Amino acid sequence: MNMPHFPTLNDIRFALIRIKPFINRTPIMTSSAINGIAGCEIWFKCENFQKVGAFKARGAANAVMKLPDEDKVKGVATHSSGNHAAALARAASVLGIPSYIVMPSNAPEIKKKAVKGYGGEIIECEPNLKSRETTLEEVVKKTGATFIPPYDYLDVIEGQATCALEFLEDQPNLDILMAPVGGGGLLGGTALLAHYWDSELIVIGAEPAGADDAYKSFHAGHIIPQTNPKTIADGLLTSLGNLNFELIQHYVDDILIATEDQIVEAMRLVYERMKIVIEPSSAVPLAALLARKEQFAGKRVGIILSGGNVDLSKLPF
Amino acid sequence: MNMPHFPTLNDIRFALIRIKPFINRTPIMTSSAINGIAGCEIWFKCENFQKVGAFKARGAANAVMKLPDEDKVKGVATHSSGNHAAALARAASVLGIPSYIVMPSNAPEIKKKAVKGYGGEIIECEPNLKSRETTLEEVVKKTGATFIPPYDYLDVIEGQATCALEFLEDQPNLDILMAPVGGGGLLGGTALLAHYWDSELIVIGAEPAGADDAYKSFHAGHIIPQTNPKTIADGLLTSLGNLNFELIQHYVDDILIATEDQIVEAMRLVYERMKIVIEPSSAVPLAALLARKEQFAGKRVGIILSGGNVDLSKLPF
Repeated sequence: MNMPHFPTLNDIRFALIRIKPFINRTPIMTSSAINGIAGCEIWFKCENFQKVGAFKARGAANAVMKLPDEDKVKGVATHSSGNHAAALARAASVLGIPSYIVMPSNAPEIKKKAVKGYGGEIIECEPNLKSRETTLEEVVKKTGATFIPPYDYLDVIEGQATCALEFLEDQPNLDILMAPVGGGGLLGGTALLAHYWDSELIVIGAEPAGADDAYKSFHAGHIIPQTNPKTIADGLLTSLGNLNFELIQHYVDDILIATEDQIVEAMRLVYERMKIVIEPSSAVPLAALLARKEQFAGKRVGIILSGGNVDLSKLPF
Repeated sequence: MNMPHFPTLNDIRFALIRIKPFINRTPIMTSSAINGIAGCEIWFKCENFQKVGAFKARGAANAVMKLPDEDKVKGVATHSSGNHAAALARAASVLGIPSYIVMPSNAPEIKKKAVKGYGGEIIECEPNLKSRETTLEEVVKKTGATFIPPYDYLDVIEGQATCALEFLEDQPNLDILMAPVGGGGLLGGTALLAHYWDSELIVIGAEPAGADDAYKSFHAGHIIPQTNPKTIADGLLTSLGNLNFELIQHYVDDILIATEDQIVEAMRLVYERMKIVIEPSSAVPLAALLARKEQFAGKRVGIILSGGNVDLSKLPF
């Protein structure tokens, strides 16, 4: 399948070289207890230990560093109240350029604090999509900053693909590679890299049943936007991006669903057995796997734990 | 100072070779965020990632493996409802020998489950010291099993000392080494190894204010047993052992105290910034350090995170 508008394997390799000094090469962990429960061998790529606590540091760093110098100096902008906001603010601060983050006025104080901590300038808007978009437009017009979208953007996807590249460099011998899917930047980048790396490698996305637009879109063959998502996996509420859907259609083998109970159970298992802190979104692939063990029996499975930014006072257990 | 009844450096090196196949060489982690807050450089030795979730796996494995074969076959026994119980059961199961764990009838179900999961046989007793001791005596008499005490026992101390040995092999350039102190097996072993390794290396114990017998004993020059301990750091409730006190008197430079609030705050910091799960006891050294930053300013500090076995439904935040 020829998709020349997407990054090549070499592009992704160059992206990793580009961002390497500014991100963590995150460790891969295993748990014999979880392997015993799952009936297969699992390697976890720990992006919860990534800078800003999530894989988003990769895409943001790559996108900011690829800007031409004359654009860099004017800064970058986005609208987000999640990990991408903090990741973009951090990437900008590493280069010493301004970042403008449009956030709804009702965004949690902790999210604002993270962005401010990285030197990002927060511009408040009304808590609706229309206001976010017009406020962002105004900011971009006034400052000349470049808009860096959170997922549906080639340089961001190229950056997220470096996670799977590191994973397969360190653990080449996998049968299946799994990642959660929200906007699709991580899953799209993962699938693209896996396609180049080893066409036999099976790529599976995992999604909460309460925000299953990727699942539905994958099976319908066209994008079905998310309406009224409801899930504890707050990183996976958004609708699939167009570029990511294209990648998913071509290079993803399946998308699996997990219920809220299954997500919480998998999350608890990771805390208890692996002693690491993950956000609910990270638990979705393991939850989906445990819900259909027979499909994975005896396989060698790689799972990307996407992040670790969770409100500790609101853990679901 | 000549203390010939304690393990030598070579004894500890042999202990590490002995137990190496059965324990994890735990990683050392750092956090630039925590370094920024603390005003010094900290390396964390992550025994929360150790087998059975705590450093106790080391001492138990070492003690069991050093038994003569004719004693091994009869099994091992202890009274404990904490990490040592699980560690001993696991060490025995690795060798395929029986373990008998005396536990108070009101011990939490989760602790019993852990011991049973490793194939340990639980013998219930009344929840008081007298009943624990007589029940253990009966078990030993009946089975011929060897009693392996949780901390005041040379082979256990030798095993715990392998933690500091690994730490200093991987990160030799430290000014200060810190460990929590309850019964004193970890701190005693750490101080002994540090003494052999580099007599300039400062060793500091950390203890909850609500269970400060080691602090008081250290300053009084004789053991003052713990009465009515009250702290969230449930691994540090016990009184100091005699052998450990001897080591602490000779080789520990200071013992610092942390309040409950400081312990919880430090614990939260580790969860939030390092994205790892630790038990409250593990947070005590960082809590003590943060309470007197000026004393540590600019230093290179190693902290042993002793374990990660915590009831997730009862986190203090």
